[in-house]
Amino acid sequence: MGMVGGGNGAFIGAIHRMAAIMDGQIELVCGCFSSNAEKSKASGISYFLPENRVYTSYNEMFSKEALLAEGERMDFACIVTPNHVHFEPAMQALENGFHVVLDKPITFTLDEAQKLKAKVKETGLLLALTHTYAGYPAVKEARERVQRGYFGKIRKILVEYPQGWLAQKQEDMGNIQATWRTDPKKSGKAGCIGDIGTHALHLAEYISGLKVTEVCAELNTFVAGRMLDDDGAALLRFNNGARGVLVVTQIAAGEENAIKIRLYGEKGGIEWLQHEPNTLLVKWADKPTEIIRTGLGYMSNIAKHNTRTPGGHPEGYLEAFANIYRNFSLTLRARMNGEQPKAEWLDFPTVDDGIRGMQFIDAMVESGYNNNQKWIKWPE
Amino acid sequence: MGMVGGGNGAFIGAIHRMAAIMDGQIELVCGCFSSNAEKSKASGISYFLPENRVYTSYNEMFSKEALLAEGERMDFACIVTPNHVHFEPAMQALENGFHVVLDKPITFTLDEAQKLKAKVKETGLLLALTHTYAGYPAVKEARERVQRGYFGKIRKILVEYPQGWLAQKQEDMGNIQATWRTDPKKSGKAGCIGDIGTHALHLAEYISGLKVTEVCAELNTFVAGRMLDDDGAALLRFNNGARGVLVVTQIAAGEENAIKIRLYGEKGGIEWLQHEPNTLLVKWADKPTEIIRTGLGYMSNIAKHNTRTPGGHPEGYLEAFANIYRNFSLTLRARMNGEQPKAEWLDFPTVDDGIRGMQFIDAMVESGYNNNQKWIKWPE
Amino acid sequence: MGMVGGGNGAFIGAIHRMAAIMDGQIELVCGCFSSNAEKSKASGISYFLPENRVYTSYNEMFSKEALLAEGERMDFACIVTPNHVHFEPAMQALENGFHVVLDKPITFTLDEAQKLKAKVKETGLLLALTHTYAGYPAVKEARERVQRGYFGKIRKILVEYPQGWLAQKQEDMGNIQATWRTDPKKSGKAGCIGDIGTHALHLAEYISGLKVTEVCAELNTFVAGRMLDDDGAALLRFNNGARGVLVVTQIAAGEENAIKIRLYGEKGGIEWLQHEPNTLLVKWADKPTEIIRTGLGYMSNIAKHNTRTPGGHPEGYLEAFANIYRNFSLTLRARMNGEQPKAEWLDFPTVDDGIRGMQFIDAMVESGYNNNQKWIKWPE
Amino acid sequence: MGMVGGGNGAFIGAIHRMAAIMDGQIELVCGCFSSNAEKSKASGISYFLPENRVYTSYNEMFSKEALLAEGERMDFACIVTPNHVHFEPAMQALENGFHVVLDKPITFTLDEAQKLKAKVKETGLLLALTHTYAGYPAVKEARERVQRGYFGKIRKILVEYPQGWLAQKQEDMGNIQATWRTDPKKSGKAGCIGDIGTHALHLAEYISGLKVTEVCAELNTFVAGRMLDDDGAALLRFNNGARGVLVVTQIAAGEENAIKIRLYGEKGGIEWLQHEPNTLLVKWADKPTEIIRTGLGYMSNIAKHNTRTPGGHPEGYLEAFANIYRNFSLTLRARMNGEQPKAEWLDFPTVDDGIRGMQFIDAMVESGYNNNQKWIKWPE
Repeated sequence: MGMVGGGNGAFIGAIHRMAAIMDGQIELVCGCFSSNAEKSKASGISYFLPENRVYTSYNEMFSKEALLAEGERMDFACIVTPNHVHFEPAMQALENGFHVVLDKPITFTLDEAQKLKAKVKETGLLLALTHTYAGYPAVKEARERVQRGYFGKIRKILVEYPQGWLAQKQEDMGNIQATWRTDPKKSGKAGCIGDIGTHALHLAEYISGLKVTEVCAELNTFVAGRMLDDDGAALLRFNNGARGVLVVTQIAAGEENAIKIRLYGEKGGIEWLQHEPNTLLVKWADKPTEIIRTGLGYMSNIAKHNTRTPGGHPEGYLEAFANIYRNFSLTLRARMNGEQPKAEWLDFPTVDDGIRGMQFIDAMVESGYNNNQKWIKWPE
Repeated sequence: MGMVGGGNGAFIGAIHRMAAIMDGQIELVCGCFSSNAEKSKASGISYFLPENRVYTSYNEMFSKEALLAEGERMDFACIVTPNHVHFEPAMQALENGFHVVLDKPITFTLDEAQKLKAKVKETGLLLALTHTYAGYPAVKEARERVQRGYFGKIRKILVEYPQGWLAQKQEDMGNIQATWRTDPKKSGKAGCIGDIGTHALHLAEYISGLKVTEVCAELNTFVAGRMLDDDGAALLRFNNGARGVLVVTQIAAGEENAIKIRLYGEKGGIEWLQHEPNTLLVKWADKPTEIIRTGLGYMSNIAKHNTRTPGGHPEGYLEAFANIYRNFSLTLRARMNGEQPKAEWLDFPTVDDGIRGMQFIDAMVESGYNNNQKWIKWPE
Repeated sequence: MGMVGGGNGAFIGAIHRMAAIMDGQIELVCGCFSSNAEKSKASGISYFLPENRVYTSYNEMFSKEALLAEGERMDFACIVTPNHVHFEPAMQALENGFHVVLDKPITFTLDEAQKLKAKVKETGLLLALTHTYAGYPAVKEARERVQRGYFGKIRKILVEYPQGWLAQKQEDMGNIQATWRTDPKKSGKAGCIGDIGTHALHLAEYISGLKVTEVCAELNTFVAGRMLDDDGAALLRFNNGARGVLVVTQIAAGEENAIKIRLYGEKGGIEWLQHEPNTLLVKWADKPTEIIRTGLGYMSNIAKHNTRTPGGHPEGYLEAFANIYRNFSLTLRARMNGEQPKAEWLDFPTVDDGIRGMQFIDAMVESGYNNNQKWIKWPE
Repeated sequence: MGMVGGGNGAFIGAIHRMAAIMDGQIELVCGCFSSNAEKSKASGISYFLPENRVYTSYNEMFSKEALLAEGERMDFACIVTPNHVHFEPAMQALENGFHVVLDKPITFTLDEAQKLKAKVKETGLLLALTHTYAGYPAVKEARERVQRGYFGKIRKILVEYPQGWLAQKQEDMGNIQATWRTDPKKSGKAGCIGDIGTHALHLAEYISGLKVTEVCAELNTFVAGRMLDDDGAALLRFNNGARGVLVVTQIAAGEENAIKIRLYGEKGGIEWLQHEPNTLLVKWADKPTEIIRTGLGYMSNIAKHNTRTPGGHPEGYLEAFANIYRNFSLTLRARMNGEQPKAEWLDFPTVDDGIRGMQFIDAMVESGYNNNQKWIKWPE
């Protein structure tokens, strides 16, 4: 894999690297880790790359790597830059024949996302989007149980993603994560909703197998002088008639990264909280709640496929992230070997999930500042 | 105290009796426990009442008790009938000079509630409304800490009350609690929203000291053939600019009675869940979350006043309920003795909280079925 | 009921009164609340007793009450004094024909306990011992499931009772609870082991239905100058071959009253923690752990009989305490009416449990300071 | 690194590989993955090794690797075979000039461990022992706070490690993990005590900074026909006068891998449970319990050094394991570069911890079956 972004000190780049290499199936072979040539070089060397595979621009990387022999050149690009630098490198990678792993939200605008989708279709290349939370085995178990109809028709979905780290004006305190995320030129038209709201939407749709069709939202900016939303909530309507509530906030002082979902059908439901990711609560109208735990023998095959350790040996965020890379790489290798990938290998977010995310941002922003119209239909 | 309703087998009547007598400050001296004379008699006898103090109608009770000497006659009426039989007995009790304890929601309509308020004002008598959850010491501690400004200005309030007992059509299965609660003739214009939504509203306003000014709601009826809402959610706006989300449902299969509140200010916030009522989480932007526990030395005086057992000896629902009775009775005794009640004794819900509840029902019903207008202003 | 001890300000006396009267089945009719006549008077009056039923000694109370007519006189004595004043009033009560409710440990010495047992046998009167923790419905559910053999043969029992309130020398800081409990003249030969260890033993034997046959213990006194043990632990052997570990301490700084039991059989086991008393975890070798919750429909009859509120309406320590009083009073009333008490009414601790507690104290003290002999057989 | 053991299908070998490579600092360059040459080959190829670096015996591996140039040859051996194959390969590795990472318990006998220690001393090479649980950042935070004296003198340590997977006779059901662990020829003189008891001891001594000086134990074998202990418990005495209780069992049906420690000093204490490894409870005699969470700003430097993700992004078992490898590799690289390793890099278990573990096994086995002598002194 070749990396775009992720120089020394970057948060999400380091996460991607650990997630990618953990299973011994993917090797970092090249990268342009910064637009600053010095920094890119230094980063690449600290990652034990040979100097000639550390590039100073993604243009250079894609064109030079494309000249290398298969087996030597990178097989795919991993793009971990801020949102406004997603579309260009992703397009170029695809155009140069490279598969892509991309951080979310997929692009800066819905229009870009649709162009990316067209290019993916045209080239037949793979594009994986790192909606990490769908990588947890307990989330996959939840999805599996919902899909099997254990709970009857789904009626209610409560999804929330409270964070507190933007309760104060971190962007003025030198926090680089905050700086670009609150800057409309880098983040896009949405702040909190794009950064973490898209994860919440994805989680809800992934587990339920349903699609949001209408939203009624309010977006807020609590911290004075901030240019994008730092808080929001919405009533949701799903395509089977289910109703939902979404709470997404970055000003919930004292909260860490507490993405949580509850889903209720006619007979029971599930509850999952990312802070204790190896536990899935399964609730029933007329029986005791069950504590489902990853790594145990009763788990479904899809959950087992995404688990590395036995019961009681907790897995975390990096392993969930690594599951996306692993499924992506298993699929990729199968394709390179002319084999049919197994169904469970195909279970990673794609450009379609990216489109849903961008539509979600559009719908939420349209509804969120509108005091008159109650329901906004899902955009095309 | 004299009781209206609460014959053998009734749920909330038994709760009221235990809560009232637990502290040895209130005695059940009379009652009309059922509109069925036989059943009323049998109930009264099983409560060790003399036959002549067991009445067959509340009219009879109020008129006959009023003729007894002070000290012998009941001091106040406790009304624990379904919603459509709140207003009449409460008015008559007041008109006959009796103080009143009333179950929530206060009346069938907002109009009735306002009449009751006028009568309370006119007579100078006490009326307590049993919003139980505000009786918990940890809730009082939360309120105290918010009021002292520990968390800065409040920005976000998340209140939820998920139950699952109406996920199936209990009203057709002989469940008498379900039968009247889902019957518009007995429950009023709202189902779930009146039954438990009013508790959630009260909890949010009690702890925050804020008032809801606008709601944007959706109400749903998931169980076919049911005549009232069994599910709802709303975006809330508060009078200080805070935003809130309210989730209230009775079809969350597998949930018990999980009323929960989270509230965030600029510096931190609180979390409280009724299922573990002796614990209050206090969260901070920059310090570890604290587990505040009732009965411990560091609690505020208001919490201590409402606590009966030392730390680690859990109190529950009945003790929270009993706190309303205890504060009511302390206030009542002070007044009967011509003394000034202490501030902490006055801490029980009154007719004003009842009015807020009825306004909430009106606003939620108006907004909940309205697909066009987004925000509904709080009714007068 | 007539009370010995429990004047204003006493901890356990107030608990007993609330627990006794909560269900409307027991009335406080007399008492000698303090050896100080003034204080006894003042206390009795504050409990709304007529002056002539407030006594200045238990001798006076028993002899004068015995002269009153049945129905007027107290039916039973409730003794809530420190340990060294258990035996005398209990014996006198029995000799005067009164049933007895006694706080634990039953007496000052095993010898006294055996005499009390002989007297109970001789008189045929009832004696209830308030091992509160066995009053919780979730504990009764645990016992029921173990007795039904759900978990196979029991192999391992882990019981612990950590408290932290004596981590400092409270007895020198004016804490009256600490003062008598750490005084060998009032508490007996054991401190922590007698005060809370007896509860832990009772809980283990009550749920498992087994008996300890041997102990290997160490007792410690961590706070300088304290005269009795404030900490201890033991390896236990049970009569079916099961093994156990007991941890009991009052110097676990930061712990409240965290009595907890875990019990494992061949197929699964249970876990119960008093701080969240309405939850029972049921574990299985090959299935998900179940969260059993009091008040729900699937509970056994014995648990339901000991539950007052529906699911999700937490009960606490007072209700557990009240269950002992309720079962005692149901049994007593049946006997007074010449009826056979139901099996579930007889489910309260008796003089036999008191004897076990005193034997436990003897065994633990013998083993606890003995550095040579490993196992001490259970005393006769 | 070169690996001994850990062929396809092995549990702990896969863990070691993921833990070693996750940070991009260590590369698997060779191995003998099985005594079966075919299996070793196939495993090596699946790990993307060149055929000539996949060996059929560790003798061959050490001798051939030693001939390669520095920079090309492996720097250290990682030994992940069953206990009876720890000593020989470790000795040979050291004799051939390779550093060693070894799974616990360090050897088959205490004598072997002492020989290994002598060899480590003689060669000056590094030996790391993978006591994983000490790798968790929350555990390091706990140690740090204890060492700083926050809790005063430590009085009481409760450490437990309940598992349930051997509640049935897994060794007869084709479970290869169970087979060697219950076989005295492969596991050594202890079963459960060696397998997981050594982890519990290490955790207690690591956090507290204290040393056990005496044990009073009982070991049990509950499953018929099993040849080694599957359960045990001990009273412990520490070198500062603190007292401890150790519970270690593999027959606690329904438990996963619930290693937990509680430690109490004069002013407060800590609680940590591996199932929720990112949370550390800090308790105080007179203040609320604090929920300390890894990844947050208030953590100590030592904890931060061992953390990869920000707050709310849970880390797990693999990351804890990886911390041992990371600190080992940082130390190793510093030494190879002739630099002084930083203090926090030296924080990994060594041969001395291995000796403690073997002494513990000896003491526990000596005490565990001895019905007469109460206390066994720690062996030399």
